[in-house]
Amino acid sequence: MAGSTFGELFRVTTFGESHGGGVGCIVDGCPAGLELSETHIQSELDRRKPGQSDLTTPRKEQDTITILSGVFQGRTTGTPIMMLAKNGDVRSEDYENLKNLYRPSHADFTFEKKFGLRDWRGSGRASARETLARVAAGAIAQKYLRENLGIECISFVQQVGAIATEISPSIVTKSAIDGSLVRCPDVDVATRMEELIRTVTSEKDSIGGIIRGVIRNVPIGLGEPVFDKLHADLGKAMLSINAAKGFDIGLGFAAVTLRGSQHNDPFTVKDGVVIPAKNDAGGVLGGISTGEDIVFRVAFKPVSTIGKPQNTATSEGKLTTVAASGRHDPCVLPRAVPIVDAMAALVIMDHYLRNHALGIKKQ
Amino acid sequence: MAGSTFGELFRVTTFGESHGGGVGCIVDGCPAGLELSETHIQSELDRRKPGQSDLTTPRKEQDTITILSGVFQGRTTGTPIMMLAKNGDVRSEDYENLKNLYRPSHADFTFEKKFGLRDWRGSGRASARETLARVAAGAIAQKYLRENLGIECISFVQQVGAIATEISPSIVTKSAIDGSLVRCPDVDVATRMEELIRTVTSEKDSIGGIIRGVIRNVPIGLGEPVFDKLHADLGKAMLSINAAKGFDIGLGFAAVTLRGSQHNDPFTVKDGVVIPAKNDAGGVLGGISTGEDIVFRVAFKPVSTIGKPQNTATSEGKLTTVAASGRHDPCVLPRAVPIVDAMAALVIMDHYLRNHALGIKKQ
Amino acid sequence: MAGSTFGELFRVTTFGESHGGGVGCIVDGCPAGLELSETHIQSELDRRKPGQSDLTTPRKEQDTITILSGVFQGRTTGTPIMMLAKNGDVRSEDYENLKNLYRPSHADFTFEKKFGLRDWRGSGRASARETLARVAAGAIAQKYLRENLGIECISFVQQVGAIATEISPSIVTKSAIDGSLVRCPDVDVATRMEELIRTVTSEKDSIGGIIRGVIRNVPIGLGEPVFDKLHADLGKAMLSINAAKGFDIGLGFAAVTLRGSQHNDPFTVKDGVVIPAKNDAGGVLGGISTGEDIVFRVAFKPVSTIGKPQNTATSEGKLTTVAASGRHDPCVLPRAVPIVDAMAALVIMDHYLRNHALGIKKQ
Amino acid sequence: MAGSTFGELFRVTTFGESHGGGVGCIVDGCPAGLELSETHIQSELDRRKPGQSDLTTPRKEQDTITILSGVFQGRTTGTPIMMLAKNGDVRSEDYENLKNLYRPSHADFTFEKKFGLRDWRGSGRASARETLARVAAGAIAQKYLRENLGIECISFVQQVGAIATEISPSIVTKSAIDGSLVRCPDVDVATRMEELIRTVTSEKDSIGGIIRGVIRNVPIGLGEPVFDKLHADLGKAMLSINAAKGFDIGLGFAAVTLRGSQHNDPFTVKDGVVIPAKNDAGGVLGGISTGEDIVFRVAFKPVSTIGKPQNTATSEGKLTTVAASGRHDPCVLPRAVPIVDAMAALVIMDHYLRNHALGIKKQ
Repeated sequence: MAGSTFGELFRVTTFGESHGGGVGCIVDGCPAGLELSETHIQSELDRRKPGQSDLTTPRKEQDTITILSGVFQGRTTGTPIMMLAKNGDVRSEDYENLKNLYRPSHADFTFEKKFGLRDWRGSGRASARETLARVAAGAIAQKYLRENLGIECISFVQQVGAIATEISPSIVTKSAIDGSLVRCPDVDVATRMEELIRTVTSEKDSIGGIIRGVIRNVPIGLGEPVFDKLHADLGKAMLSINAAKGFDIGLGFAAVTLRGSQHNDPFTVKDGVVIPAKNDAGGVLGGISTGEDIVFRVAFKPVSTIGKPQNTATSEGKLTTVAASGRHDPCVLPRAVPIVDAMAALVIMDHYLRNHALGIKKQ
Repeated sequence: MAGSTFGELFRVTTFGESHGGGVGCIVDGCPAGLELSETHIQSELDRRKPGQSDLTTPRKEQDTITILSGVFQGRTTGTPIMMLAKNGDVRSEDYENLKNLYRPSHADFTFEKKFGLRDWRGSGRASARETLARVAAGAIAQKYLRENLGIECISFVQQVGAIATEISPSIVTKSAIDGSLVRCPDVDVATRMEELIRTVTSEKDSIGGIIRGVIRNVPIGLGEPVFDKLHADLGKAMLSINAAKGFDIGLGFAAVTLRGSQHNDPFTVKDGVVIPAKNDAGGVLGGISTGEDIVFRVAFKPVSTIGKPQNTATSEGKLTTVAASGRHDPCVLPRAVPIVDAMAALVIMDHYLRNHALGIKKQ
Repeated sequence: MAGSTFGELFRVTTFGESHGGGVGCIVDGCPAGLELSETHIQSELDRRKPGQSDLTTPRKEQDTITILSGVFQGRTTGTPIMMLAKNGDVRSEDYENLKNLYRPSHADFTFEKKFGLRDWRGSGRASARETLARVAAGAIAQKYLRENLGIECISFVQQVGAIATEISPSIVTKSAIDGSLVRCPDVDVATRMEELIRTVTSEKDSIGGIIRGVIRNVPIGLGEPVFDKLHADLGKAMLSINAAKGFDIGLGFAAVTLRGSQHNDPFTVKDGVVIPAKNDAGGVLGGISTGEDIVFRVAFKPVSTIGKPQNTATSEGKLTTVAASGRHDPCVLPRAVPIVDAMAALVIMDHYLRNHALGIKKQ
Repeated sequence: MAGSTFGELFRVTTFGESHGGGVGCIVDGCPAGLELSETHIQSELDRRKPGQSDLTTPRKEQDTITILSGVFQGRTTGTPIMMLAKNGDVRSEDYENLKNLYRPSHADFTFEKKFGLRDWRGSGRASARETLARVAAGAIAQKYLRENLGIECISFVQQVGAIATEISPSIVTKSAIDGSLVRCPDVDVATRMEELIRTVTSEKDSIGGIIRGVIRNVPIGLGEPVFDKLHADLGKAMLSINAAKGFDIGLGFAAVTLRGSQHNDPFTVKDGVVIPAKNDAGGVLGGISTGEDIVFRVAFKPVSTIGKPQNTATSEGKLTTVAASGRHDPCVLPRAVPIVDAMAALVIMDHYLRNHALGIKKQ
C-alpha cells in the first residue's frame, strides 16, 4: 500500500536506500522446490551493476547478494525469500552539499514535500540502487519461468537519442545483447550509439532512449479482464522504473495512424490449431495473452544527473546552481535492460500464478 | 485479484456484460458527506453514451444509472455505493452467428481459451459497455476532487489517424472539448478529424488516435515511491481501457532524443515558493506529484470491429470470413474521452486518500 | 480496504442497507463453468430469512435474489457475479423516532462518530440484512466445494443461554439441523432451547448462545503460514458476523487447562497413510489443514434490540429511554447458522484457490 | 497473499526461519518523522527473548535487531524499515533426528504435505522465533501510538492451567506485569502460576493458559463496517500467534448466558459527552471503537514440544516415539505477552491510518 510491494501472488517487497545499511527484498509466494542459490541471482545483478564499461558510471557498488531465508538445502521452501545486498561504497559526504537544494528533475523536491524530510545521501530511496532488489527478485522469476515453462524475458536497447535499430525482437538473443556494450544486438547501430554516449559524456550531459522487450513462449490465458489486463500490469511495472516516461504494447503509438483493416490480426489455422496470422497486437487481446510473443517498448528520459552546471533552487527558496561531480551514467539504458527483464518476469510470474488459481475454472 | 477491482482506498469493482442483466459497480471508500445523486453521474455518462452524433455508433443503450446504496438523504454515508445500469437494447440474436468464430483482434479467442467458455453476446465482459461503470465511479471521484480540492481531470482528442492538434493542454476547457463532435478543442483540426472519420466510416473501416489528458491543481505529494508511482498507476489505469495500446507522461517518447540539459526542469522561486521553472516532466518527479499540471497521452488502436469482410477462423479450426453488421464506432476516441477523465480521477482520488493517511507523516 | 470486501482470490464485496434500494454483492474470482442459477442460492437464503417460525422476527423481507452478471447459459463465466435482493418491506417511519438517539449496544453511536452522519433507518449498513449478501456468496462457494471436492460446511446451535448440547459435530447432519426450529440437532436440548427463547420473548428480552461449526473433507494443505493461518482467517470471518463476540478452534478455550501430553494429537498410520490419531487441534496445525474435520465455535451475544425499556442518550446529549417496537429476533442463533456456513465456505474456497496457485510448488 | 504480510496501510512482512540466516521484517507505511533507533525496539524484544527466568527455555538466541533502512538521522523517512536479527545459536544437529518424523501437534506434517519439503531445523518457518519480527514491528507501532495518541497496548497472563486472576484489566500496569516472572500482575496468583509451571516442567510436560489484553485511549471510530471490524482484525491477529486457539472480545463467551437487558451497555452523558455507561462490549460496537478500553482474551494451548516420550509416526509411515531434548518453554504465556501487545499495536496502527484516510469523510 505504501508502494514498495509489487504483485499479488508472487509478491516482492523491496527496501533500502543508496547509502543506508543495504538494499534488498522479500519475495513471498515463490513456489517450493525450485533450485536456488546466490549464484543464480548474481549473474543478473552483474548485468545491472555499475562500472561494466566506460559507458557507465565508474562508481563501484557492493552488489553482492545474500539469501537469508526461504531456501533450504538448495531449494525454495515456499516461505519468504529475503535477499540483502549490503551497501559498501558509501561516500555520503559527496552529497553533503546537496542536502539543502533540489536537483533539477530529481525526486529531492517531491520527497521532501511529501514526507517532511528526506535522506539526501545519493537520492535515498529514489536512487536507482533500489532496482538491484528488483533484479534479484526478477532473477528468481526468470529462473522459474525458464525452467518450468520455457518462458524467456529479453530486452535490448532499441534507440539512444535519435539512433535506432530496426532489428526484429523475434530474432534477438540474450547473448547478442550482452555482447554489446550498449546492449543493442545490431552491431552497426550499437557502434553509433556508443559514439553518441561518449560524445554526451564528454559534454557532461546525458541522453535518453528506448528499450524494446519481448517475452516468448507465454501460455495463452495470462492476464485478467478489465483492470488487471496483462499489458496494463506490464505498463505499470515498466513505468515504475526510474526515468521511464512511456510504454506501449504491440504497434503501440504507431497503431494510431492505421485503419482497423490494416491493424487487425486475422486468425488462421496452423497444424489444426487456431493462431493469429500476424501479431500487431503484441501478444495480448482483451488484456489476455494470445500465446504470441509479447512485444513492448519503454521510453527513458535522459538521466537527470549531469555534470553541466544547472540553475535550480534551495529548500529555503534561494536560487543557486548545481553540477554533478561525476559518478553517474550518461545513459541509463544499457544498465536498465536487466531491470526491464526483471519487471517483465515479475509480471508474467504473478499472472501465471493467478491464472493457475483460475485454471481450476477449466475443470 | 480476479481483475475487476481498481484502487486501494477508493476502490471500484465493476460487473456486467453487454447483454446480461446490466452493468455497474460498487464504489467502496468514498468519503462520507459528499452530496450525490444520479444526476451528478448521468452527465458524465451522457458524454460516453452511443448515438451522440453521426460519428459514433447509432446503437442505443440504456445508460440510465440508479444508485442502490451508500447514499442517504442526498449524501454519501461512507458505505459502499452500488450503481446499476440495466441493459435494455439487447439483441443477442445479432451475435448468434459470431458464437463459433473468433473476430480478428477481439478478445473472443483469449476469453474462450482462458475460461473454457465465453458469453458471445456482444463481446460479453470484454465489451466497452463495461466502461459505463468506470465513468459512473469516476464521476463521483471527479465531483469530490473538484469540490474539495479544485482538481480537474480534462482530456481531449489530440490526434485521429495522422491528423493532430498542437493545442496546449494547459489552455483547453471542458466546454470547448464538448463543443466539438470529436472532442477536439482545436476547431480547424476537429473539422478535418470529422472528415477523416466520415471517410473511414464510408469505407466500412476504423481509425485510431491519441487522447491527451491534463490534471490540474493536484497537490504536491501524491504518489508513492518505487512501485506505486503516480504515473505508473495512471499508466495502468489508461492501458486498462479497451483499445488502449500506449501511454506516456510529460514529453514521454519525445524525451528520448533530448539531452538531460534540455529535458531537465530547473527549480525556480516564485512569490517565495519553490516551483519547477518548466514542466517537461509532466507533473511528476520520482513518481510523486510536483503540483504542476499532470500531462499525459493515451494511444488507441483502430477499433477491431469493422464492416469490411475479414478472414478469420472458427473455434473448430475452420477458415471463414466475418463482416460486422454496422452498429459500431469507426473511431472510439470521442467517446473514450470521458473514460480517460474517469480513470484519471480514480487514480488521483485513490492516491489522495493514500497520501492523506500518509499525511500523518508530517506531524 | 474500506471493509466491505472479503477474500483474496474468491473475493466478495457486499453492499446495501436495510432500508435502501437493496442489498447484494459481487463475487469476483469464481471459477468458470460452474452450473449456477438463482434457485441454488435461494435455498440458503431461505434458511436465513425472517419469519421462519414463531422463534424469529415476524418481519417480512424481500429475500429474493437475482443474478445480474457472470452467468451465461446456466454456467459461471469467470467474470464477476453480481447478485441483488431489492428491499421491499421498507417501513422507515418505524425508525424516525430513533434517528436522534443511540440505541444501547447498537452501532448507531460509532457510525455517527466515525462518518459524521448515519442512515438511521433500521441500522443502515450495520443491519444484519447485509448478511443476506454473504449467504448468497457463500452458497456459490458451498456449491463449488461440495460438487468438486466433497467439502461440507455445517453448523448448528450448540448452546442458547445456559442450555447446551454435547452432541459431537462429527455426526450431525444438515437435515437434522434444519429439522429443528432452533437448528439444534439434539432433539431434547432443542426443545428446551425453544422454551427458553419463548420465555425470553415473553419478557421482551433477548438471549445469546454458541454455534458450533464443522467443515468436512478439507484437503490437507489449506492455509498459509504466519499471518494467514486457516483458523485465523476463519476467526476473522466469524467475528465479522453481527453479534459475534468470540471464536475458538479445536478444544479452544478448553485447551488451556490441559497438559501438552493430554492435548497433543499423536500421529498414527492407517492403511499406510499417516494421520493424526485424534483431533483436539480441530483440523489445523501451524495454520494449515490436516485433512481432519475443522471444528470451531462462535459465541454470540444476546441481540441488542429488546422490547424492554432501556436508558440511553440522544445525540444531543440528553438522557432518554428506548424500547423496541417488536420486529426483532429474541435470539439470532437459528438464523445465524446459514451465515456461519456461508462464511466458512468463503474462507475455505479462498484458501483452496490460494493453495491451488501454490500447488504449483509441488511440481 | 502468501501469508507473511499483515496490515493494509501499516504493512508488516516478516521473513526467516529459526535456523536460517536470520529473522526480521519490512515495515512499510510507517509515518515519516518518528524518532526511532534500535534501542526503542530492543526493549520489547528483550521481553520476548528466551532465558529470562527458570520458567522459560534456557535456549539462548541472538535477539539483537539491526535497522537497515527507512531511518535517517534518527527519524523514520516514510520508506520501508527493514529490521534484521541474525541467527546465532544454530544447532541444527539437534534436529537431525527429527527430520523424518512428525512431532505431535507440530506443523511438521502440514508443512511437508503443503510444500512437498520442509526446513526441519527447529520448526523452520513455523518456529516461534518468527514472532521476534512481529515484536520488532509492533514496537514501532506502539511507540507511534503512545507518543502521538497516548494509546497503550497492555496484556498480561490471566490464567495458567486452572489458576486464574480476577484482576481488572483497567487497573493493570506494564511495570506490575513485567515485575512478575509469569507476567501476571496479581502477585498471589502469580506465585501459584509459577509453582504450577515448575511442576509441569519437572514432569517434562507443558501447560496452556489465557492472556488478557487491554488497549487504552483508542479514539472513537477505528474499525470498518462489515468484514474489517476492529475486533475481527484483532481476532485474526491474535489467532495467527503460535499456539493460540481462541479469542474473544468484551464478555466474549461469557456473554452467551446473559439476557440483552443485562449485556447491553446503555449510553449516558458525562461532562456533556455521550459515552457508554459500562463496557461489556469490550470497546467495540458494530466493529468500530467506542473510545472505551478494548478488552480481549487469547487462549493458548499447552506447548506441543514436551520432554515426555510420545507416540507418533515417521514420514515413511512407521510408528515411532519422540521426546524433546530440553530447550523448550513449558508454558509460552509469559513470553507471548509482548507478542500479544505487538499484534494489538499493529491492528490499531493500521486501523488508525485507515481511519485517518477515511477521516476526510468528516470534512
